[in-house]
Amino acid sequence: MNNKITKLFNINYPIIQAGMVWCSGWRLASAVSNSGGLGVIGAGSMKPDVLREHIQKCRLNTSSNFAVNVPLFSSYTTDHMKVIIEEEVPIVFTSAGNPSIWTQKLKSHSIIVVHVISNVKFALKAVNAGVDALVCEGFEAGGHNGREETTTFCLIPLIKKHINLPLIAAGGISSGKAMLAAMVLGADAVQVGTRFVVAEESSAHLNFKHKILSLEDGDTILTLKELTPVRMIKNDFYNHVKEAYLNNYSIDELVDLLGKGRAKKGMFLGDLIEGELEIGQVSSLLDSIQPASVIVEEIIQEYNVLKSEIMKL
Amino acid sequence: MNNKITKLFNINYPIIQAGMVWCSGWRLASAVSNSGGLGVIGAGSMKPDVLREHIQKCRLNTSSNFAVNVPLFSSYTTDHMKVIIEEEVPIVFTSAGNPSIWTQKLKSHSIIVVHVISNVKFALKAVNAGVDALVCEGFEAGGHNGREETTTFCLIPLIKKHINLPLIAAGGISSGKAMLAAMVLGADAVQVGTRFVVAEESSAHLNFKHKILSLEDGDTILTLKELTPVRMIKNDFYNHVKEAYLNNYSIDELVDLLGKGRAKKGMFLGDLIEGELEIGQVSSLLDSIQPASVIVEEIIQEYNVLKSEIMKL
Repeated sequence: MNNKITKLFNINYPIIQAGMVWCSGWRLASAVSNSGGLGVIGAGSMKPDVLREHIQKCRLNTSSNFAVNVPLFSSYTTDHMKVIIEEEVPIVFTSAGNPSIWTQKLKSHSIIVVHVISNVKFALKAVNAGVDALVCEGFEAGGHNGREETTTFCLIPLIKKHINLPLIAAGGISSGKAMLAAMVLGADAVQVGTRFVVAEESSAHLNFKHKILSLEDGDTILTLKELTPVRMIKNDFYNHVKEAYLNNYSIDELVDLLGKGRAKKGMFLGDLIEGELEIGQVSSLLDSIQPASVIVEEIIQEYNVLKSEIMKL
Repeated sequence: MNNKITKLFNINYPIIQAGMVWCSGWRLASAVSNSGGLGVIGAGSMKPDVLREHIQKCRLNTSSNFAVNVPLFSSYTTDHMKVIIEEEVPIVFTSAGNPSIWTQKLKSHSIIVVHVISNVKFALKAVNAGVDALVCEGFEAGGHNGREETTTFCLIPLIKKHINLPLIAAGGISSGKAMLAAMVLGADAVQVGTRFVVAEESSAHLNFKHKILSLEDGDTILTLKELTPVRMIKNDFYNHVKEAYLNNYSIDELVDLLGKGRAKKGMFLGDLIEGELEIGQVSSLLDSIQPASVIVEEIIQEYNVLKSEIMKL
């Protein structure tokens, strides 16, 4: 395949593995990159030294391009960026913050910069900051998300209407079918999160992976909108959040309730009761743990078959 | 075009105009049916005698099939159904209620029955009730909606996985691009609401139509989830709803705040301040008031062009 995104990243398939906290270390990222997609290390759950180790191991395990995702609200951002520049990471995805602060700095080191957005306003800001491409993340996506609640189906054509940059669709995409639909809507590539969380090489705890495979529709929710909106599983911790709302908790009280380390507790340590379990709506379509290479292969194969059959529609 | 839905409804194009309160009377329905799609009269805002008049006028104005949408929670449902049977309406869409109560009764009069769902559980119930097809309505759709908040992108493949009936995708669909994407995801047809609200033949007030054309992303919200969740414009009335939540209103108090006739006030009488303005997220993509025939034509043309170009992806 050969389009704006495969050229920009120098990859075979326009499939980006989302950079996710506690799930996407060097094992997952290198496996995806070795399969022809773009593997992305999620720096959000890593201290700078840990990030450096993951970058080095990723490079040892793949000769293909890979990327690092950096949430810009993190207190480690400056250190993360230092490590990324020193280690000569070729591609950086920035999210959850102002892209104008880091984009030109990274580009001055010949790093390709992609920014994650979920509305037109931030898409325009990212364009002004000079990013090379955008991830457009719909309401159905797992983890942190936008306040407008715009879905993938509405977001992709809307951003496409306003912006002339390569677009990567995110949210609700786990199959070749969804990949083709996203490309039809105007995307140049897809970012797949949830399905890679249940990849064999994902560092998500096995309890969390099995929980994901058991989910039905309606089992995730976008909540904690007063803080940073996040889509997660409606588990016992979520019930505490619901109670907090019923009891009119202030924002500070919500921050206290969330506390620190809850995503780690759930996603990495496997505490399904008290952990925060971030995952996308598309989890209800998943039914197996597979190697990343099989995931990429299945998506591409389904995509190609559907594309060739589309004239029958 | 020739597929399960065009055959079931005996129409040229698999485009269904959503049956919507205060917007879709005989003028819109007959215009859509005359254009090769399926026009649908929205009984939800009509007393039984008014519905009868609309059915008769629709029949006078088109020789093609058309349908009536009946929200099953209405106190008029029994009378609506009586009118529909007496007037020999060929197709009925039921929504917002239990399909087992009416499906067989309607089918015994040779009426085709379609039920609107937004989750797997109700889809299975509708199959058991014996309906002929399903409308799968995603979170982005305007008006009443499901509690699971599943988006079109996730809902279509999920229902397709569980159900072997013709599927009509709804929510976020206003273009040929979106139509093709929905078909790729597994739909056999699309239901278009928001774009037909701003059709020339729609009975929506001109104030409401112009308001819709001015909307940007994030200007609608799914709210009043304690009653029946509804997607509407964030206008002054919505600000009252927000305040009500801050003040911990009970369900009864929310019902009182909503009151009666608020949708009519906004959508039909054009009160943009105190009216309830139900519309979908895809409104942010719309920019003109057009005849229904042009809307159908543009969607089909874009669909066909994209389909023929898909091998270039």
